[in-house]
Amino acid sequence: MFTSFENCTPISLLPGFTARFIHTDTQTFSLVEVEEGAVLPEHFHENEQFSQVLEGTFELTIGNETRICNPGDVALIESNIPHSGRAITACRIFDVFSPAREDYKKLSIPPEEGSN
Amino acid sequence: MFTSFENCTPISLLPGFTARFIHTDTQTFSLVEVEEGAVLPEHFHENEQFSQVLEGTFELTIGNETRICNPGDVALIESNIPHSGRAITACRIFDVFSPAREDYKKLSIPPEEGSN
Repeated sequence: MFTSFENCTPISLLPGFTARFIHTDTQTFSLVEVEEGAVLPEHFHENEQFSQVLEGTFELTIGNETRICNPGDVALIESNIPHSGRAITACRIFDVFSPAREDYKKLSIPPEEGSN
Repeated sequence: MFTSFENCTPISLLPGFTARFIHTDTQTFSLVEVEEGAVLPEHFHENEQFSQVLEGTFELTIGNETRICNPGDVALIESNIPHSGRAITACRIFDVFSPAREDYKKLSIPPEEGSN
């Protein structure tokens, strides 16, 4: 019932993107550290996404609209809408996905002991 | 698609609790300013709740477990589990509710022009 992102193992998602995840049955909460210049290629997913820039400046494109997002700015990305971005500076971004990101849950599972 | 809590009207929820809401069809995101000493009476709701203390210290009880939550600490409150709390210091708390808080959506609607 009580936890912290500090308790979560950092996972490299993409070059320049390192995330810590808290999953529930229905949602995924993600704290992402982004290196300056890192690029988020265009992609989409069924999961609705809330993104808030906590630190830094991130250029985000949702569909055909591009915005420069600064601390406090929030983006709401509907299901299956293509989005992409670029870190203008190093950033910390908080994301919420609904339903939970089952693909990210798999990344969170540590490799079996003794496997390569 | 792009917004900010700064764009949202602050709403007094309870004595000492002032919230700004961003609602989607499926979730409610809430940034709450809490005055020192303010009390959250025990209550419960069907909506699952994620709460993260951003600033300050908040004593939170979920079911029978009480914790002192500091910045970065996260609480996950399952559907219909009673919870209560007390602000040890002034706090800023970020909450996510799933499904959306239909009761809070009604609070967000400004009174009709000309009504009392």
